[in-house]
Amino acid sequence: MHTTELYSQYVTSMRKIADIKYSIALLGWDQECYQPKKGAAFRSQQIATLSGMAHDLFVNDRLGELLNRLNESSELNEIQKRNVQETFKDFNREKKYSTEFVEQIAQVTSQTYQAWLKAREANDFKLYRPMLSTMVNIKREEAEILGYENHPYNALLDIYEPGANTDELDVLFKDVRTNLVSFVKDITATNRVPADFLKQNFPYQQQWDFGIDLLKQMGYDFEAGRQDVSPHPFTTNFSMEDVRVTTRVNENDFNSMTWSCIHEGGHALYEQGLLIENYGLPLGEAVSLGIHESQSRLWENLVGRGFGYWKGNFPKLKKIFANQLNQVRDFDFYKNINKVQPSFIRVEADELTYHFHIMVRYEIEKQLMDKSIAVNDLAEIWNARYKEYLNVNVPDDNHGVLQDIHWSHGSFGYFPTYSLGSFYAVQFFNQAAKEISGLNEQIEKGDLLPLREWLRVKIHVHGRRYSARELCQRITGEPLNFNHFMNYARKKYQAIYEL
Amino acid sequence: MHTTELYSQYVTSMRKIADIKYSIALLGWDQECYQPKKGAAFRSQQIATLSGMAHDLFVNDRLGELLNRLNESSELNEIQKRNVQETFKDFNREKKYSTEFVEQIAQVTSQTYQAWLKAREANDFKLYRPMLSTMVNIKREEAEILGYENHPYNALLDIYEPGANTDELDVLFKDVRTNLVSFVKDITATNRVPADFLKQNFPYQQQWDFGIDLLKQMGYDFEAGRQDVSPHPFTTNFSMEDVRVTTRVNENDFNSMTWSCIHEGGHALYEQGLLIENYGLPLGEAVSLGIHESQSRLWENLVGRGFGYWKGNFPKLKKIFANQLNQVRDFDFYKNINKVQPSFIRVEADELTYHFHIMVRYEIEKQLMDKSIAVNDLAEIWNARYKEYLNVNVPDDNHGVLQDIHWSHGSFGYFPTYSLGSFYAVQFFNQAAKEISGLNEQIEKGDLLPLREWLRVKIHVHGRRYSARELCQRITGEPLNFNHFMNYARKKYQAIYEL
Repeated sequence: MHTTELYSQYVTSMRKIADIKYSIALLGWDQECYQPKKGAAFRSQQIATLSGMAHDLFVNDRLGELLNRLNESSELNEIQKRNVQETFKDFNREKKYSTEFVEQIAQVTSQTYQAWLKAREANDFKLYRPMLSTMVNIKREEAEILGYENHPYNALLDIYEPGANTDELDVLFKDVRTNLVSFVKDITATNRVPADFLKQNFPYQQQWDFGIDLLKQMGYDFEAGRQDVSPHPFTTNFSMEDVRVTTRVNENDFNSMTWSCIHEGGHALYEQGLLIENYGLPLGEAVSLGIHESQSRLWENLVGRGFGYWKGNFPKLKKIFANQLNQVRDFDFYKNINKVQPSFIRVEADELTYHFHIMVRYEIEKQLMDKSIAVNDLAEIWNARYKEYLNVNVPDDNHGVLQDIHWSHGSFGYFPTYSLGSFYAVQFFNQAAKEISGLNEQIEKGDLLPLREWLRVKIHVHGRRYSARELCQRITGEPLNFNHFMNYARKKYQAIYEL
Repeated sequence: MHTTELYSQYVTSMRKIADIKYSIALLGWDQECYQPKKGAAFRSQQIATLSGMAHDLFVNDRLGELLNRLNESSELNEIQKRNVQETFKDFNREKKYSTEFVEQIAQVTSQTYQAWLKAREANDFKLYRPMLSTMVNIKREEAEILGYENHPYNALLDIYEPGANTDELDVLFKDVRTNLVSFVKDITATNRVPADFLKQNFPYQQQWDFGIDLLKQMGYDFEAGRQDVSPHPFTTNFSMEDVRVTTRVNENDFNSMTWSCIHEGGHALYEQGLLIENYGLPLGEAVSLGIHESQSRLWENLVGRGFGYWKGNFPKLKKIFANQLNQVRDFDFYKNINKVQPSFIRVEADELTYHFHIMVRYEIEKQLMDKSIAVNDLAEIWNARYKEYLNVNVPDDNHGVLQDIHWSHGSFGYFPTYSLGSFYAVQFFNQAAKEISGLNEQIEKGDLLPLREWLRVKIHVHGRRYSARELCQRITGEPLNFNHFMNYARKKYQAIYEL
C-alpha cells in the first residue's frame, strides 16, 4: 500500500476515535450544565462505555501496524510526520495500560470521588484518608507502568505537561519560594486593603450580558460556541467549531462571573484557533495543559487585570451598574481587582499568592509519589505549609486539604501546569507587546483582535506541532524564564502598593 | 455455559449498545436545543460514527450466536424469553441491511434533507423532486430487502408500528373518510367560529412557568427530566431517569406552548414509566410509535382539551393573564381550544381534521411504494386530495406537499402512527374512566396522578412485553376500534357546536 493510502487510513481511524471522545465531552458538558439529578447513574455508565470503546479503538493492532509502517516511511511531509510521531507516543503510552488496570482506575476514581464528597460534607479529612491512600497507591503503580527517569512523579507530570520534570519544577518553585514569598510579605506589610465595592448586589442578567460582551470583545466566536452556567466554570470542545465555556454568577460578588468569563474565554480562543483540517489529529490538539493555561492566564491577568483593559470597559461597567459604582474611580477599581491577600482557597487567590497554593500541592504530590510523606499525615503537612508560605492558619479541612477535586479524580501532576501557564503567559505577553505595535493602545480601545490574531498565529494554529519547550523558544527566543513573571509582578504591584 | 451466564452476557451487550444509542440521543438533543451554528458539520459526523458503531455491535456474530442459544434454551422465564424474542426480531431485521446500504441511506437522507430545505426556501416542490425520487426508490429497495406480505408499504409500516399493515389501515381510513369527513362537514356548516382571544400577547416567562406547572401537575418528574426550547417540540430520553421534553413559546399565541407541553409531557411519562431494570432491553422500550402517540394524545386531547381539565386550571390561567382573559368565560375558552377548522398545516390542525392530513399522507405513501403514483405528480395529487377531504385550496408548496420534514428523513410509514395513537388514546381513556372511580372529578381538581398511575401500570411498565395489539386487547378487552373515537368525537363536538 502507498504511504498516501496508509496515511489516509490513519486519519480516518483517528477521526473516528475523536468522534467518540468529543461525544464523551458533550456527555460531560451536559452533566455539569443541564443533566437532571436522577440522570447521573446511567450517564456515568454511558461515559464509561464510550471511554472503553475509544481506548479499544486506539490501542488495536491494526492502528499499531499502520503507525509502525508510517513511522518507517520517508514519504511523509513535516506535518504528517509530526502527527504520526505524536500519535505513536500516545499509542505507546496508552498501550501500557491493561484493560484490567483501566477498569481498576475507573472504579477507584469513582469511589475516591464519593469519599471526597462525603468527607467534604462532614468537613473531615479522616473520612477521605482510606480511599485517598488507595488512589495514591494506584497512581504510584501507574507511574511504574508508564516508566520514568529520576522520579516517579515525572511519569504523571508527563501526562499533562509532556517533557516536564521535577528537576525543572524544583528550580522553578525554588524561585517562587525565594522571590515571590518575600515580595508578597512586603506587600502584605503595607496593610493597604482596598475598599470592597465589588461585593455589592450586581443583578444576574446585567452581569451575564456584560460577560457576553467581554467574550465578544476578545474575539470569541459565538457561532462556534456558547456560554452556559455550571457550578465550576470550565471550557470544553466538541470540534474547533463548537467550543463552549461556562461561568457562574454571584449576584453579591462581581468577581466571580467576570474572571471566569475572561479566563475560560482565553482557553476557548485556543481551541477555536486550532485548524479544522487537523480534527482528530495531534496537530488539532493543544500542546499541553501549561500552554493551555498560558492562554487563559494571559487573558485573565495580563489583559483583564491590566489598567488599560478597563480604560474602555470601566466606563461601560459604570453605565450598567451606575448605583453600585458611581463613586468609584478607575484606579481604585484597578487596585481592587489586583488586591493581594494570602487566603486558604486556591481558586479565589490573587495572581501572586496563587502560586504558593500550587507550590504546596506540588511538594505534596511529589513526596506522596516517592513515599517521603504519607496520606495519613496530609492534613497536618498541608496546614503547616500554609502557615509557612502564606502565613495563614487553616481553620478546617474544607478550607485546607479537602478543597480541591483533583486528587479524587486521580489528577496527580496536574496542579503544576497552573503555575507554568501563568509564567508562560507573562513571557508570551511581553513578546506580543514587542511585536504588535500599539498593543497597549489597542487594549485601551477594546480592540483585542490583533492580540488574538498574534496568539492564533504564534500558538493556536500549530496544535501539537511543537512541544511546549520548542514553542516557547520559537516565540520568545528563550526557554521558560521565571524572571519575566517576577519582573512583571514587581513592576505592577510596586505601583499598586506604592512600595 | 449456563443459560444464566448466557443471558447475562446478552444483557451486558445490549446495555453497551444502549449506552451508545442514548449518547447519540443526547447529541441530537443538543443539536436541536443548544448547538451553535458552526457546530453542525462535525456533529453530523460524530452521530454517524456512533450510529455505525451501535449497528456493528448489534449485528455482530457473537451476539447472533448468543441469541440463537438463548432462543433454544428452555430455562428462561417469561420476561427473559420475551426480551430475547424481541431482540432476535430486531437483530434479524438489522442484519438484512448491508453496511453499503446503510451508508447509502445515510447519504441520500442527508442530500434529501438539504434539497428539502432549499425547496422550502424557494417554496417550490420542483427543486425537491429529483432527490425525493431517489429517496422513494431507496425506500422501495428497503422494502424489498426487509421483505413483506401483500404490499411493500407493510415492510416500512412494521418499522414504526410492528404488525401494522395496509389491510387494516385501509379499513381504518375508510372509516375516517366515511364517518369523520361528513361529520366535519356538519360542523363547518354551522359557521360558528369562536372569538380568538388566545392570539393576544402572553409574555414569555409567564407562559413558560405555566407550562412547567402543567407538567408537574401531570406527574412529570423534573428530577428525571427537564424542559428546554427548540424550534420543533420533541421528547427524547437517555435512560428512564433522564427523559427530556422541549417546547416553543409564541408570545402572540397561547396555543403553541400549551399543547406542545401537554403532548410531549404525555410522551415523557411513558418513558419515565419504563422500568430501570430493563435499561437496554426490549422491555425497557416503548411498544410502538402508535402506542407512544396514544400517550401524548391522551394527555393532550382527552385530558388537556377536556372541559374538566380547565375547571381548575382556567381560574389559575386567568390569575396569571388577568388582562388578556378577564372577560373570557370558561365555556368559551373550552370552545376556543376545540375549534374545528379545515386548514393546510398538519401540525396546527384540530383533533378531528388532523386525521384527514394523515389520510392524505397514508394514501400517497402507499401509492408511492406500489408505484401507482409518481413523485413528479405529487404536488397536484396532494392539492387535489386536500380539496377533496378538507375542501381547501392549497396556496403554495410550502403550505402543501413541502410542509413536513418526514420524507426528507426517509420516514415513510411513520405518519399513520399519529392517527393510530389518537384512536388508541380514546379507547384507553374510556377504559381508564371505567376503572378509576371518580376520574373526572380528579381531573377537575387537578389530581392527575391516579390517571398517570393507571397508565403506568397498564402500559408504561411493560415496555415491549406485549405487542400493541395484545396490549389493546388486554387493557380494553377488544382490538383497536375506530367507533370509540367516532363516538367520542360526536358527543364532544355535537355539544360544542350545538348540532
